[in-house]
Amino acid sequence: MHTKSFSIGMDIGGTNIAFGIVNRHGDILKQHNLKTADYGSPQIFVEALKGYLGEYFSEFGKDEITGIGIGAPNGNIYTGNIEHAPNLVWKGTVPLAEMVTQAVGLPVTVTNDANATAIGEMTYGAAKGMKDFLVITLGTGVGSGFVANGQLIYGHDGFAGELGHTIAIRGGRHCGCGRKGCLETYTSATGIVRTAMELLENAGETNTEHPDWLANVNARNGKVASADIHKAAVAGDPLALEIFEFTGKILGQSLADAVAITSPEAIILFGGLAKAGTYIIGPTKRHMEENLLYVYQNKIDIMPSGLSERDAAILGSASLVW
Amino acid sequence: MHTKSFSIGMDIGGTNIAFGIVNRHGDILKQHNLKTADYGSPQIFVEALKGYLGEYFSEFGKDEITGIGIGAPNGNIYTGNIEHAPNLVWKGTVPLAEMVTQAVGLPVTVTNDANATAIGEMTYGAAKGMKDFLVITLGTGVGSGFVANGQLIYGHDGFAGELGHTIAIRGGRHCGCGRKGCLETYTSATGIVRTAMELLENAGETNTEHPDWLANVNARNGKVASADIHKAAVAGDPLALEIFEFTGKILGQSLADAVAITSPEAIILFGGLAKAGTYIIGPTKRHMEENLLYVYQNKIDIMPSGLSERDAAILGSASLVW
Repeated sequence: MHTKSFSIGMDIGGTNIAFGIVNRHGDILKQHNLKTADYGSPQIFVEALKGYLGEYFSEFGKDEITGIGIGAPNGNIYTGNIEHAPNLVWKGTVPLAEMVTQAVGLPVTVTNDANATAIGEMTYGAAKGMKDFLVITLGTGVGSGFVANGQLIYGHDGFAGELGHTIAIRGGRHCGCGRKGCLETYTSATGIVRTAMELLENAGETNTEHPDWLANVNARNGKVASADIHKAAVAGDPLALEIFEFTGKILGQSLADAVAITSPEAIILFGGLAKAGTYIIGPTKRHMEENLLYVYQNKIDIMPSGLSERDAAILGSASLVW
Repeated sequence: MHTKSFSIGMDIGGTNIAFGIVNRHGDILKQHNLKTADYGSPQIFVEALKGYLGEYFSEFGKDEITGIGIGAPNGNIYTGNIEHAPNLVWKGTVPLAEMVTQAVGLPVTVTNDANATAIGEMTYGAAKGMKDFLVITLGTGVGSGFVANGQLIYGHDGFAGELGHTIAIRGGRHCGCGRKGCLETYTSATGIVRTAMELLENAGETNTEHPDWLANVNARNGKVASADIHKAAVAGDPLALEIFEFTGKILGQSLADAVAITSPEAIILFGGLAKAGTYIIGPTKRHMEENLLYVYQNKIDIMPSGLSERDAAILGSASLVW
C-alpha cells in the first residue's frame, strides 16, 4: 500500500485557531493562524477552512494527505464532537469531525488538546520510543494525557486524563468546574497568580520590600504571568522562589499519586509554566520524590516538552492521524 | 494452530497458596490449597509444586496446558520475579517464573494479585466485554488493577495500580509503607478496624450504649473483622452504619480522582469488605458522585466482583496465560 506523505494538524483554542500541513519528519510546510472570535459559528469556520485547505490540496496533492487531526477543548475521539467546551463561543455539541469531513472529503480525528500534545510528544518530541508516560499541560488550565502500553488512555467516554481536576487540597480553592481544591487552581498560569496574590496578602501592607512585579499583582488584577515570576526568580527574588516552591509542592504531591496509578517512565511538562524550566521542575521533582511510594522512587524523569512551543499544537494534532 | 484446553492458575499469599487447573469456561477441574508457612524458601515450594503439577500432567496431558499464571504480592510481569514482598517470608528478589519454568517446563507469567484479579474479572467475571474499568481489592491491604483500551496497565516498571497507596488524607494515618494517609489505612479490613477503634475512643468511656461487637474491639486487639461490622449494620446498628459511611466517603473521594485519570466504565469491588454489598457500595457510590467532575457524573457503575470468592484467585491467575 502506498504510504501518504502528509497530514494536517489543527489546534482550536478559545483565542486562536492554528493549522498546517506536516510531513513525517515533523516539518510544518505551510500553516495558517486565525482568530477564533472571527468565526461566530462552526459553520462559518468550516466554510472558511474549505478555502484554506483548497490551497494545501493544490500545492501538495489531496491524494498525498492522510487526514486531519484536530485538538480542541473537550474534543472527543469517539464521537468526533466538541462537547460543551466552556472556553469556546461555539456552544453545545459541535459535530466537528463530520462537518469537516463533509466539507473537504478527508478523514478527521478529534481529541482534546492535552491528548493531542501527548501523541505529539510520542511522535516527534520528548517521549519518542516511550510506552508509558504522561504529559501535563500547565497553561490557562491544567490538562493531561496519559499513555500506557504505547496507547493514549481515552477512557470509556473519551474524557480520560483530567489530572487538572483531581483534588490537590480538599476544600481548597474554588475551581471553574464548580468544585474546590482542583490541581488546576494551584498549578495553572491563573493558579500561580492566585498564589502570588495570597502571599502578597499574607505579607501585609506594612511590608515594603516587595519587588514591583509582585506588588503590582493586585493592581494588575491577576494579569501577572508566570513569565514575570520566572524572571523574578532568575533575579533571585525570594518571594518568586517561594511561589515556585509552593507550586512545585502541590504539583509534586499530585504527580506522586498519579504515578501510583500508571507508573510512567517519564512526566513531561508543557505550556506556559513549564517554560520556567528548573525553577518549576526542581521543586516539583523534589516534592514528588518525597511523596512517592518506595517502589517508584528515583526512577521517574520529569522533563520539559520536546516540541517547540510555536509548532507543538499543529504537530500534536497532525500526529493523531499517522 | 491447535488451541490448548487448559491453563493453571496460582495465587500466592502470605497465609495460603492455592492453585488449580482451569478450562476456557472458567471451571476449576482440580485444585490444591497449601499453607505458605510450610515452605520456608521458594526452592522448597517449587520442589513440592513439581509433584502436584505432575498429577495434573498425567490427568489432563501436559500438551493441553497453555501455561501457568501466578498472582503474588509484588509480582512483576516484566521480570517474572517477586520483588521484596513485605508480607511474604520469601525475602528479596525471587525469580519465580524462571524457577517454575525450569522445574516443570511450561511458560509462566507472574503479576501481582490485584492485576490477576482484574484480568480474571475481564475473562470470567463482572468486566466481561469491558475495555476500560478498574478493580479495587479491599482485603488485608488495598490493591487495584486498571484496564484501559482492553489492556491492563502494568506501567514502565510493572508496578502500576497501587491505588491503595495514593494519599486519601494528607498527614493522615500511618501506613505500613512508611508514609501517612494512604487509602489502604482507611479502606482495608485493617483500616475499618482502625475506624471502629477511633469511633469507640471518641464516644468515650461513659457511653454504655455500644453493642458488644464494637465495645469488644479494643479487647480483641483489632481482630473485629469487616464481617462483624457488616452483620451489625444489617441489624441496624448506627455505629456500624457510621463506619461504612466514613469508609465509603474516603473511598468515594479517592475513586473520583482515579476516574479523572482513566475514565472507566465501571469500578469493581473485590475482597472481604466488598462482601458488605450495598452497605459499602451505597456510601462509596454517593460520595464518589458528589466528588466527580461533571463530565463523569452518573455514568460509572460500582459493582461487586463477578467471581466467586473461593475461585477468584485461581481463575484470575489462570486467565493471565490465555
